[in-house]
Amino acid sequence: MSIRANDPTISSWLQVKTASDFPIQNIPFGVFLTPDDVITIGTRIGDHAIDLGALHQLGYFEGIPLTDDIFLQDTLNDFISDGKKTWRLVRNRISEIFEASNPKLRDQKKHREAVLFSMSEVEMQLPVQIGDYTDFYSSKEHATNIGKMFRDPENALLPNWLHIPVGYHGRSSTIVPSGTAIKRPKGQTLPKGANQPVFGPSKMVDFELEMAFITTDANAMGESVPVDQAEDHIFGLVLFNDWSARDIQKWEYVPLGPFLAKNFASSISAWIVTLDALEPFRVESPQQKPDPLPYLRHSGNNSFDIHLEAAIETPDGISTIVTKSNFKYMYWSMAQQLAHHTINGCKVNSGDMMGSGTISGTGEESFGSMLELAWQGTKPITLSNGDTRTSIQDQDTVVLKGYCSRNGYRIGFGEVRTRLLPA
Amino acid sequence: MSIRANDPTISSWLQVKTASDFPIQNIPFGVFLTPDDVITIGTRIGDHAIDLGALHQLGYFEGIPLTDDIFLQDTLNDFISDGKKTWRLVRNRISEIFEASNPKLRDQKKHREAVLFSMSEVEMQLPVQIGDYTDFYSSKEHATNIGKMFRDPENALLPNWLHIPVGYHGRSSTIVPSGTAIKRPKGQTLPKGANQPVFGPSKMVDFELEMAFITTDANAMGESVPVDQAEDHIFGLVLFNDWSARDIQKWEYVPLGPFLAKNFASSISAWIVTLDALEPFRVESPQQKPDPLPYLRHSGNNSFDIHLEAAIETPDGISTIVTKSNFKYMYWSMAQQLAHHTINGCKVNSGDMMGSGTISGTGEESFGSMLELAWQGTKPITLSNGDTRTSIQDQDTVVLKGYCSRNGYRIGFGEVRTRLLPA
Repeated sequence: MSIRANDPTISSWLQVKTASDFPIQNIPFGVFLTPDDVITIGTRIGDHAIDLGALHQLGYFEGIPLTDDIFLQDTLNDFISDGKKTWRLVRNRISEIFEASNPKLRDQKKHREAVLFSMSEVEMQLPVQIGDYTDFYSSKEHATNIGKMFRDPENALLPNWLHIPVGYHGRSSTIVPSGTAIKRPKGQTLPKGANQPVFGPSKMVDFELEMAFITTDANAMGESVPVDQAEDHIFGLVLFNDWSARDIQKWEYVPLGPFLAKNFASSISAWIVTLDALEPFRVESPQQKPDPLPYLRHSGNNSFDIHLEAAIETPDGISTIVTKSNFKYMYWSMAQQLAHHTINGCKVNSGDMMGSGTISGTGEESFGSMLELAWQGTKPITLSNGDTRTSIQDQDTVVLKGYCSRNGYRIGFGEVRTRLLPA
Repeated sequence: MSIRANDPTISSWLQVKTASDFPIQNIPFGVFLTPDDVITIGTRIGDHAIDLGALHQLGYFEGIPLTDDIFLQDTLNDFISDGKKTWRLVRNRISEIFEASNPKLRDQKKHREAVLFSMSEVEMQLPVQIGDYTDFYSSKEHATNIGKMFRDPENALLPNWLHIPVGYHGRSSTIVPSGTAIKRPKGQTLPKGANQPVFGPSKMVDFELEMAFITTDANAMGESVPVDQAEDHIFGLVLFNDWSARDIQKWEYVPLGPFLAKNFASSISAWIVTLDALEPFRVESPQQKPDPLPYLRHSGNNSFDIHLEAAIETPDGISTIVTKSNFKYMYWSMAQQLAHHTINGCKVNSGDMMGSGTISGTGEESFGSMLELAWQGTKPITLSNGDTRTSIQDQDTVVLKGYCSRNGYRIGFGEVRTRLLPA
């Protein structure tokens, strides 16, 4: 089945600004509250929010096997469970409906009024109920930076890192969508030179520039997903800010890993961009040496060329881009992560989320966290307003953005924007 | 409000065998499938399964504020959300209904037939939809044993252990109820002396003797639960077998903690015994030195005297109790665990599960895992049939049991019984 919706020559009868993240070739999925306080599943073209629940009720998805209420839900989980074939049919149909030459909805004022909102009128929600959330640690540059800082600069990577897409479980209950302010966490830390911990607000709140993928029901418990089929179980991607309290992390994380240093908040962008929409932007992953074990081997273009950036916006409204990175730097692919996650029979459900880990590039200007950018506080970053930062301050807003660009069009993720409130 | 249901002098018109885990003073909550394939919330007295959905429809909970369908659900999450006052009212009412002298249901054959099943007729389900699952590491003896084996026998406890109820996030999707067989996991391990990992079935599958508590909605994101209010947000406890693949764990767990070594399966008992039912069995926790930070300080009897045991049943049907331990050995109380978990604002929802960590006592005969009992394989255990074990073998069944006993009655958890199938 072809991905008709990706045809770069299609334009929409809806107005789309140049360089919008959301041309008719994107068609992401999300959940929003309409001005009438109705929750619905929707998509977006330009700055238009499109109510898929209303569109379905009006018969626009006729011929596609969908239950009547599939879009009248407060999460995408059931739609994602319908599987890849259905996602593709729906996305292609949306493309048809909004194609410039198609008069069906374009010339039906009543229908248009029922279906279309301005993005400024709607309130975006968390797009899925996340059952389980896993975070990987798959950027070699990031893992190397951390190893240099906290362990041995000469042997920065741990012995397992080149063999395993290292990952750990995170907390689902505190994942919030873009626009939700979060609080500086309190907790235990061990001051330098002290032998007793103290309690108080974290002094080292950091962002982590990540992406995360959302899965469908991938397997039965006890079964594994082969690496070359893994992408069929990935619905799409979001931007992901894995908020971290470095001082809490340092004191708590040996031997069982990060816990309260991470689970106070994690922020994702509101629109899930499908793997189908990203198809034109496939690139090779970095070469892997040594060869991974057979269950992790695959060939072809298993990554995506997604430009990423993080900015700090100070309370005066001045924004400074502090890093530019790219999803393609990831050493382990999403397919390898999912194959590894299930090799022991671990069950993956619809709506589960798997983060990439901080995505750092090779140059200092592409590091994915303040920990690396300011190198453990030793190299403060200067912002556009002259302030300096080694970590995120109260009332700072961190904004992550991401987009692909090629062949005259751009597929973007919008942003994940989060203000840090005082403890 | 008094806990009338705990009165040890009450007996039931339902027959209860001596030394049953489920006298009328227990009244645990669970979910089962009736012989007519209906899912319902229920309780248990003796070997009688009681359909609370049917009981509610027949008007037996009149006067208690409950929605009509509160027990006609496939999980306890909504009922747990109703809060402690409601749990107590319902438990007291059930006690009244089944008290020997109460003719209301006893003498109504039609009602009895609608409400009562034999335990052998029903199929127990997972009692809650577990949103997030956390496992603590709160037995000092267990943490010390692990430290002795893998680190420094002279400094077995890590510096943070006496200050923090150390914990980490686990995987909810593979938590299964008693009776569900599991598969030996496959994965990467590093053979002794090798510098390249190999792939295959784990050679060191182990049980961990734990208990876990189930929470209600405890807080809003960004808020903390004070230690002296924490127990109000705990619905009850289950037995918990935190299955572990030691060889996979050893290779993967540095630096981010256990992942595939644990998330292939975790098993819980099917009945949640309420904190109210355990009230008569309160005991002090071990003394804590040094004093924890103020947010973790509390006084009084914060633990429970729950006898625990683990048995291995070989395919010939012969069972050997391999360890006897007790929940009261836990250094950190459940209240301290929950207060710590939320001190950074982490949100806790109805149906979340928090494991104790392996509960080992001081003597060798009370260690809570094969890793400790057979001391890393150096001291094989001899079973009743003459076989020896250093880990769990294919087709072995591990059975954990737990009960409290005092004042002439016993409150038990039944068992969590799990057979290990080949990879």
